[in-house]
Amino acid sequence: MQTLNIFTNEPDSLPKGKADFLLAASVTRTCEIEGITQAGIPGKIPLTPTLDAEFITNEKVFSMPELAETPKGVPTPALITRAVHNLTPYSSIEVLNLGLDVIPQNTPLLNFNISPSDSIASGAGIDARAVFEKGMIAGKNYELKGNYLILAESTPSGTTTAATTALALGYDCRDDFSSSFLDSPDSIKEKTIDAALLLINDEMNNFEKLSLVSDNMLIFCAGFLLEASRRFHVILAGGTQMAACLLVADALKEDVLMRVKSENITLATTSWVVNDKDSDIKHILSHLSYAPHAIYTSFSFADAEIEVLKLYDKGEAKEGAGAGGALAYANANGITNRELLEKIELLIYGM
Amino acid sequence: MQTLNIFTNEPDSLPKGKADFLLAASVTRTCEIEGITQAGIPGKIPLTPTLDAEFITNEKVFSMPELAETPKGVPTPALITRAVHNLTPYSSIEVLNLGLDVIPQNTPLLNFNISPSDSIASGAGIDARAVFEKGMIAGKNYELKGNYLILAESTPSGTTTAATTALALGYDCRDDFSSSFLDSPDSIKEKTIDAALLLINDEMNNFEKLSLVSDNMLIFCAGFLLEASRRFHVILAGGTQMAACLLVADALKEDVLMRVKSENITLATTSWVVNDKDSDIKHILSHLSYAPHAIYTSFSFADAEIEVLKLYDKGEAKEGAGAGGALAYANANGITNRELLEKIELLIYGM
Repeated sequence: MQTLNIFTNEPDSLPKGKADFLLAASVTRTCEIEGITQAGIPGKIPLTPTLDAEFITNEKVFSMPELAETPKGVPTPALITRAVHNLTPYSSIEVLNLGLDVIPQNTPLLNFNISPSDSIASGAGIDARAVFEKGMIAGKNYELKGNYLILAESTPSGTTTAATTALALGYDCRDDFSSSFLDSPDSIKEKTIDAALLLINDEMNNFEKLSLVSDNMLIFCAGFLLEASRRFHVILAGGTQMAACLLVADALKEDVLMRVKSENITLATTSWVVNDKDSDIKHILSHLSYAPHAIYTSFSFADAEIEVLKLYDKGEAKEGAGAGGALAYANANGITNRELLEKIELLIYGM
Repeated sequence: MQTLNIFTNEPDSLPKGKADFLLAASVTRTCEIEGITQAGIPGKIPLTPTLDAEFITNEKVFSMPELAETPKGVPTPALITRAVHNLTPYSSIEVLNLGLDVIPQNTPLLNFNISPSDSIASGAGIDARAVFEKGMIAGKNYELKGNYLILAESTPSGTTTAATTALALGYDCRDDFSSSFLDSPDSIKEKTIDAALLLINDEMNNFEKLSLVSDNMLIFCAGFLLEASRRFHVILAGGTQMAACLLVADALKEDVLMRVKSENITLATTSWVVNDKDSDIKHILSHLSYAPHAIYTSFSFADAEIEVLKLYDKGEAKEGAGAGGALAYANANGITNRELLEKIELLIYGM
């Protein structure tokens, strides 16, 4: 495995030491639009963040007999995130409840009185200012246990809400967003994005726009990031969704009279996102007011015994539940591709 | 400050190193019986565990304008627990949701699908076997961050349910239980205990009895303790309630074919409990099938500038929210009475 800079392809890495792992788990009803995502069990997509949270924390799930997987049988990237913990533990694992349908069991959950948001196709119904402020308060109060923080997300259909969010804020990145599908369901996503954008207009301020077309994860994490990165290094573990989160923070920083302490922020994703032909994370990041630090870690399932895992290398699933950040953390701590692959397969055999 | 063995009064102490702090927060509707407890704001007693959880985690509360205090104005012992964290941090702070009315905000909460229990005067309505098993699962899965664990509780009216629990299990300790009052409200407590004991009979097994007359904290923590102490040292931070928790574990161990690994268990409480004339924690502990390790730490508010704190030394409040374990932890880490007193007063001035 190698960790490389997204822009230069030069060797790069995470900070030294141990990291806290924080999963922003959120449901947007957008995920219930037929065919918009494959991040979960068909008909039970809103359970995915709950199951991811339980699995990363406990190595097992309590709220369903089985772990979420795509219809082709590709298991959630939470497997990667948990396997890394077994090889080189995070200093802590906690979950942000940013609107969950089902409360994860036996899982340290931070609550903020946030409900699942509605489908952006008809208006998300978020109080964006309140959610952003809750994120700032949480970021200000968060007590770091290790040396730095990995902030990850589990938000099914989150690439659709992320794309809409970026467009609503005026960023030119229509075709830049990824998907959990190998063959991205463009027409359903496009229709949803178009319907959402019809709900906003130029008279609205940023918070009003986000209240209609964004998701709680993006808004909360943007506020969290602005405050937390003043005190310690924050790794945004994710692909195009976390890139959109950076755009949100950049757009809202002036509303709260803050600057982005970009030297304390790193985006860490997978090679599957960086190499994706259907999206362009570099182009999304190019809209930031600063040169962001962004890395990806090569890891391959080429030698997997469990055939279905090889679909990752073809572009299924790609990212989520902190997989990209976890890979970079593993690499920084000397874990090899082979060790990690074996641990992941062990987890699957054990299920 | 000195930490001493409860039985020998010889110097004693907690293990070396850093401890995780886990607060078992629970509501029993028993606490709504008029005059049974002063652990909280009159009319809002069920909020106390929520506020304790928020305060220990955040040094502030979100669910009420002010921190819980007794009618005489004695602030919650959670102040002691938090002040210790500011002087010598726990490796983590998490809260067990063992039936809460109001979800603590911005606080790492572990959920187990447990609701507040009913008043024992008319039957607690607990599924004791299920709650005990949830405790065992949580104890088995808990990932220790530091070197050992401090398990504390916040359960208003918990001394009444603890006394009833011990009596229901056949232990001879009618007059041994403490109270948050200086002048213990014996008649109300006695009437409640008597009403509860009328609900059970000798045909019932232990789980059936506990389902009627106990509380979720005692049952869950007993299960948790049995499993967790197999792997690491567990400090039960509390007074007569935590002593009752040990009785429950001792009574139920045969139902689950386990033994108590007593060398990995320490009860840690305050001198206010040990010196209480109205209760007898030593006598409660004498019923255990093994010689328990139990300590208390002298700490005094004699030099307090804030007069109301001196009521602790007279026997108000006494214990709760892990105060006794926190004091022992502070002492083991070289914190002096003066440093701690100053930090506690600083917290109060800052509110």
